[in-house]
Amino acid sequence: MRESAVPEQHPGGLSRRRLFGLVGAGTAGALVAGGVGGAIGRATAADAPGVEAAATDAATDAVPFPGAHQAGIVTPAQDRLHFVAFDVTTGDRDELVELLRAWTAAARRMTAGRDAGPVGAVDGDPDAAPDDTGEAIGLPASRLTLTIGFGPTLFRTADGVDRFGLEERRPAALTELPAFPGDELDPAISGGDLCIQACADDPQVAVHAVRNLIRLGTGVVRVRWSQLGFGRTTSTSTAQATPRNLFGFKDGTNNLKAENGAALDRFVWVGHEDGGGDWLAGGSYLVTRRIRMLVETWDASSLDEQQRTIGRAKGSGAPLGQRAEFDPVDMTAQGEGGPAVPETSHVFLSHPTNAGTALLRRGYSFVDGSDGLGRLDAGLFFIAYQRDPGTGFVQVQENLRGDAMNEYIRHTSSAVFACPPGVQGEDDWWGRALFSA
Amino acid sequence: MRESAVPEQHPGGLSRRRLFGLVGAGTAGALVAGGVGGAIGRATAADAPGVEAAATDAATDAVPFPGAHQAGIVTPAQDRLHFVAFDVTTGDRDELVELLRAWTAAARRMTAGRDAGPVGAVDGDPDAAPDDTGEAIGLPASRLTLTIGFGPTLFRTADGVDRFGLEERRPAALTELPAFPGDELDPAISGGDLCIQACADDPQVAVHAVRNLIRLGTGVVRVRWSQLGFGRTTSTSTAQATPRNLFGFKDGTNNLKAENGAALDRFVWVGHEDGGGDWLAGGSYLVTRRIRMLVETWDASSLDEQQRTIGRAKGSGAPLGQRAEFDPVDMTAQGEGGPAVPETSHVFLSHPTNAGTALLRRGYSFVDGSDGLGRLDAGLFFIAYQRDPGTGFVQVQENLRGDAMNEYIRHTSSAVFACPPGVQGEDDWWGRALFSA
Repeated sequence: MRESAVPEQHPGGLSRRRLFGLVGAGTAGALVAGGVGGAIGRATAADAPGVEAAATDAATDAVPFPGAHQAGIVTPAQDRLHFVAFDVTTGDRDELVELLRAWTAAARRMTAGRDAGPVGAVDGDPDAAPDDTGEAIGLPASRLTLTIGFGPTLFRTADGVDRFGLEERRPAALTELPAFPGDELDPAISGGDLCIQACADDPQVAVHAVRNLIRLGTGVVRVRWSQLGFGRTTSTSTAQATPRNLFGFKDGTNNLKAENGAALDRFVWVGHEDGGGDWLAGGSYLVTRRIRMLVETWDASSLDEQQRTIGRAKGSGAPLGQRAEFDPVDMTAQGEGGPAVPETSHVFLSHPTNAGTALLRRGYSFVDGSDGLGRLDAGLFFIAYQRDPGTGFVQVQENLRGDAMNEYIRHTSSAVFACPPGVQGEDDWWGRALFSA
Repeated sequence: MRESAVPEQHPGGLSRRRLFGLVGAGTAGALVAGGVGGAIGRATAADAPGVEAAATDAATDAVPFPGAHQAGIVTPAQDRLHFVAFDVTTGDRDELVELLRAWTAAARRMTAGRDAGPVGAVDGDPDAAPDDTGEAIGLPASRLTLTIGFGPTLFRTADGVDRFGLEERRPAALTELPAFPGDELDPAISGGDLCIQACADDPQVAVHAVRNLIRLGTGVVRVRWSQLGFGRTTSTSTAQATPRNLFGFKDGTNNLKAENGAALDRFVWVGHEDGGGDWLAGGSYLVTRRIRMLVETWDASSLDEQQRTIGRAKGSGAPLGQRAEFDPVDMTAQGEGGPAVPETSHVFLSHPTNAGTALLRRGYSFVDGSDGLGRLDAGLFFIAYQRDPGTGFVQVQENLRGDAMNEYIRHTSSAVFACPPGVQGEDDWWGRALFSA
């Protein structure tokens, strides 16, 4: 009988969906046998009638967790985002290390489509809180990736305190971003000692993962800020179609992509030669900016104004003066009254030719209700990975001072993090090389 | 040649996706021929190379807009929500009527997977703002439904002013909800003269629809509040699996469903005999409540406490003491220390047997960032349709005073609306029967 054989064969390897099939029937048996409070879990699977047939294998849409680099950077961008930044509330380095170990174990499990802990939402002692909160029971892995980053304040606080003995290991590149003209940053939703980026094709899976990591962090960290994104605004693989942002334009046509191996080594991955110690080699720097888009103002502007602001055609996404989306941007092409791609356009100023650098972007659109003034609080949660923030985001952003798009956007949150390389093997954990040296 | 034939055959019936295929290539031709600011649109389709083959028919996942009832009530619940409430800023009844006509026309188009207006994001005069904001270009209809409701304040303000000559047509049942113990309502995100519920399987499609309706309302209405929901928490059809809410439990097992014809007539649809004039017959009353869930507290509670609070098993969703999710709730079944389904459980108190009524719920989970105290601002945006709020939500809610779940939730927003019946035929519009009599 296949159902009863499964627990013996794969006691620790059941997917949430498979587990759900078993527990769905097993629960009833336990309830009848043991009353309301009876233990419910995989051990009761032998009681299950033929529900297993309905289960599917969650592993089919799981993104591997270990690797040379963390997943969630060049992974083809998933549809939904839950991003969270934490303040570390403990002063005890060992407690922080224990949390990083526990987070890694939970991340391994959840990215494989399993519960956050070995005793799931419906298993074990009825008098204890389950390891998992349960809202993802029955859902597949949904290409969930969990990506961790360490903020500058983890190494030394704004007051210069080296809380965890990490200051000497801080790479020089990991420092607060400079102020930019027009910044309207809210400190309450900026910065953070740690961050976790959860991306998945199902928002419930991303939210579930963040929530369970928050729960594991009780007493060690606390949520500083959190941001949901409902729609990806860039592609990170040539296999993906270019999506549209809330300006209605295709975004990220010229984004760095997973297939650009040499460019990734040049612009995204930190190398051994980059300083800051080997702990970050194979990692990347993450910059987040919550960019409010003044969509009401934008929507009142003409098609021509919109296209000249972006530098691309709204329909096809082609650079102005060209025919198709992926045609090269021609800075010399002439239009009716001057350059086809205006020199104040976003494409002109952010293009690698003019910015002198490149970023891997994987941002998400957001709508956080309305602002009390009758406008949607909508925009782009900008996420970019780079080898060095100074020669990455900062350099690009400096070049955007004259960007015609600035009239339509406001940066309301900012953060920078160093994301270590991927974990290797079963005993590795997030940040091991940083904390163990 | 199929591409060039399409505009002649169906000049007004192109789906967004089909249009996109045409415009994607047509744009380039227009740009080359007419320069940057050249008109871009369907007329250029004859220039298009073979891109049509990649287009699919958006109509395959379109929900019909006209009907005896508005779509979005018994329609099988879509995955994502954008809900918006408006204040009417004009005092001119004709302006309001014009907006309702314009909204209806746009809703017809967008629910069919088309642009908000006849001159789409990439068509027409480059010196004019397009009719459509463009971010849904290329996306199918995604089962979008748009459902309108009229709040009590549309009929008479809090000061008793009858702004639009509607007070005599206000049904007695359309009145502000009473206060309930434990309410922590924020007036800024409660109430509203009008509301539109946008549900779709793609959040970008729901957001696009709301945004374009907001835009059409400029100068007549303004956004009072807006709420996104990322995951449906109930089913409204027996064909749908029961989803899980942020307590990790299956929600809405006993919900009224599309297939419950007689029960819908009894509990959901307003009848001619219900008073308030015929304009609302075939409509329904909508109650929304933003319910913050104290997930951190919940997650720290034991499995037994959680199950006894809900009255169901967390795994299977079976009523406590029963075997399977859809087994009837047995109020007389005994457990180890008393009734199997505790008399303070949510299931016990909200069950039609004890509440004496039934609701059609179609709520959504939300996470609106965090609260500044280290907690996720997460919960359930509760949506319920009923024949009469007094014998629907109010009666149920009164019965939940002793609900064990109250410890874990806070109601932060509340609103009630009368939703007219569906529009009929091409000339009908939202609220015609209310405003034309």
